Amino acid sequence: MKVEIIAIGNEIITGKTINTNASYMASKIQNIGLTPLWHTAVGDYKEAIEEALKQAIKRADVVLISGGLGPTEDDLTKETVCAYLEQALIFYKEIGEEIKAYFKKIKRPLTENNMKQAYFPKQCDIIPNPNGTAPGCILKKKNKYVVLLPGPAKELIPMFEETVLPYFEKKVEGVYRTLDIKFFGIGESQLATELADLLGESDTLVVAPYVGNYEVIIRIRAFSSLLEQAQEKVEEIKNKIVTRLGNYIIGYNDNNLETQVASLLKEKGYSIATAESCTGGLIAATLVNCSGISSTFSEGIVTYSNEAKCKYLKVDQKTLDSFGAVSEETAKEMAEGIRREAGADIGIATTGIAGPSGGTKEKPVGLVYIGLAMPQRTYVYKLFLQGNREAIREKTVKNVLYELYKQLQ
Amino acid sequence: MKVEIIAIGNEIITGKTINTNASYMASKIQNIGLTPLWHTAVGDYKEAIEEALKQAIKRADVVLISGGLGPTEDDLTKETVCAYLEQALIFYKEIGEEIKAYFKKIKRPLTENNMKQAYFPKQCDIIPNPNGTAPGCILKKKNKYVVLLPGPAKELIPMFEETVLPYFEKKVEGVYRTLDIKFFGIGESQLATELADLLGESDTLVVAPYVGNYEVIIRIRAFSSLLEQAQEKVEEIKNKIVTRLGNYIIGYNDNNLETQVASLLKEKGYSIATAESCTGGLIAATLVNCSGISSTFSEGIVTYSNEAKCKYLKVDQKTLDSFGAVSEETAKEMAEGIRREAGADIGIATTGIAGPSGGTKEKPVGLVYIGLAMPQRTYVYKLFLQGNREAIREKTVKNVLYELYKQLQ
Repeated sequence: MKVEIIAIGNEIITGKTINTNASYMASKIQNIGLTPLWHTAVGDYKEAIEEALKQAIKRADVVLISGGLGPTEDDLTKETVCAYLEQALIFYKEIGEEIKAYFKKIKRPLTENNMKQAYFPKQCDIIPNPNGTAPGCILKKKNKYVVLLPGPAKELIPMFEETVLPYFEKKVEGVYRTLDIKFFGIGESQLATELADLLGESDTLVVAPYVGNYEVIIRIRAFSSLLEQAQEKVEEIKNKIVTRLGNYIIGYNDNNLETQVASLLKEKGYSIATAESCTGGLIAATLVNCSGISSTFSEGIVTYSNEAKCKYLKVDQKTLDSFGAVSEETAKEMAEGIRREAGADIGIATTGIAGPSGGTKEKPVGLVYIGLAMPQRTYVYKLFLQGNREAIREKTVKNVLYELYKQLQ
Repeated sequence: MKVEIIAIGNEIITGKTINTNASYMASKIQNIGLTPLWHTAVGDYKEAIEEALKQAIKRADVVLISGGLGPTEDDLTKETVCAYLEQALIFYKEIGEEIKAYFKKIKRPLTENNMKQAYFPKQCDIIPNPNGTAPGCILKKKNKYVVLLPGPAKELIPMFEETVLPYFEKKVEGVYRTLDIKFFGIGESQLATELADLLGESDTLVVAPYVGNYEVIIRIRAFSSLLEQAQEKVEEIKNKIVTRLGNYIIGYNDNNLETQVASLLKEKGYSIATAESCTGGLIAATLVNCSGISSTFSEGIVTYSNEAKCKYLKVDQKTLDSFGAVSEETAKEMAEGIRREAGADIGIATTGIAGPSGGTKEKPVGLVYIGLAMPQRTYVYKLFLQGNREAIREKTVKNVLYELYKQLQ
């Protein structure tokens, strides 16, 4: 099935919001065997929405539309699309009640136009939206499908995963199996060189690299009329990749470094504590984003000043005076200090220069030390990271998790 | 002048590359008074490129096309567009020499198909590309302009700034002024209701809402032949909005809550310390992302367990036993505890249920208490937040910064 993706909203057209929904949906639908063909974005205007839909329906079997489902007057998507498809909107009482309940819960006044979001065609599949007030829907006209989704990615993504993908997966003949292999510590071009003979694209097999959030992903996608055959093809390629580059692999599919680390900590019964300077709490926050982390993580300290490093971690003032806060010695004392003071099995520490100011010739912006106090011994890693303040801090977190992951294995 | 932006490339269509060129160009052209109307992305196929161009030329005065100018066989943009516009390609000797020199410089072998990039129509404006081998060009047919640019942002952006923007700036009459006003604590629909009489769009004035990251933005854009007049119009609308909804305004243009809070803390000479449970370090990490925060923030503690709350913040065990960790009483003691223990002017605390598990009927997922210990007194805020674990934690951070911002003013 051919797919066209339409984004609706002035914020997209004027460049205020980057159209990440298009790339997200394009990437996901290929996993279930649909083919993305065309992306369009138009503003919140009736004529433009109509024209985009008219063209899309000519070209594609499935039209995925995001945006313009909000409660205000310039949110025209549902009204325009349903009028074009000749589907009258009726009031869905139960959705109206849910919207009322949502506003009651968040203690915001319900305005009359919020009720606009409870109107849908009589014949359609509603897509529940647990993270907002605008449900989506799947419309069918003859052999064409039109899917309406809200614009904010935080609402769209869960709706797409939970409702839209399973819906279309059932309609595709043959079976696709996909596997994402995630790498860290190796660049895209080196990866492409090492796997040159495996990369490529045919109707039944795709092996291609993607660049993710400071990590590189190799996606394997195999098609067959039989599940086992598709699965076998994926396994065959996977095994070749693991043999060559297993050391750099940090996970598969939705696994990421933090979930891998969290489950290894749990599995081994290790407790962990953090002492952060340049990352300022980002490592703790990343761990805490894993639900159920409380069995392994109970405390962390952000020691941004030298005083705090001495007070909470008992870093020796002499160490700070002799080597500076950004040094191998300080990172080691911080990691061992938090391990000891928190009574944890593992202590993690970061200290570095995130910029934009504060760099010197000897200690440039991007210099970061990571301390990892394990039960047997303490490791210190020295990194030279590139990018702005935010990127340096985020890359530090990834590196901490990567080194911890390797140690835990 | 109306503008359509077309991206060409399979990597865009399959979601491998996010189409940031479209938002970049859309955003830039508005500053010189051009109006972005439509974005399209198609794969590297002759028919698709032709169809996209045909439609764009109908709708727009200027068509900006990026991608597909490379040397390989699937780079078809220039050939397809020029054939469609009936402009024969001729060899530009001086561009051929530049390409040869470039390859000599980067010490890569020159292949024959690289010379493809030295062919252009006889009548066009060449756009030099200092960062790659593919120059671009501006074509004119009747009263329509078609601009061809390479896909990589590192090449496109300098070419756009140095050649394309100045080219079209000369063709536009009059001046634009814009202002973004950012709101928090008020929903898009309530905002639209309160400002209903001001919102709207004409050739000379646009006042429209956008939804940002947990905040709503009103953008004002005024056009005039005189700079002062455009500026006056913006000010007039701004003043009306400030009078009505000033309480909810958290900043203008690139300012956000954390930078506003950081500069208010600095201005007033206040120090601040954080004690985080459900946010797990995210507040500290958000503050630390503001460069120069070290003069006001020196320490923060992630007290994820009850033991850590007692140990570091001296929260009374009886309080935890009687009211629970997620309670007004605990939030108050945490905020006052970190203020006292850190010797800071302001103490911030968060405790809540981020889910997905851990909720009860009395204390559901999304219940969060914020404690704010100020020099004069301590405030506790009770919130009911919606969304998944990540959203609840991020919304908590925004709310903390918002309440702090209001207190600091």
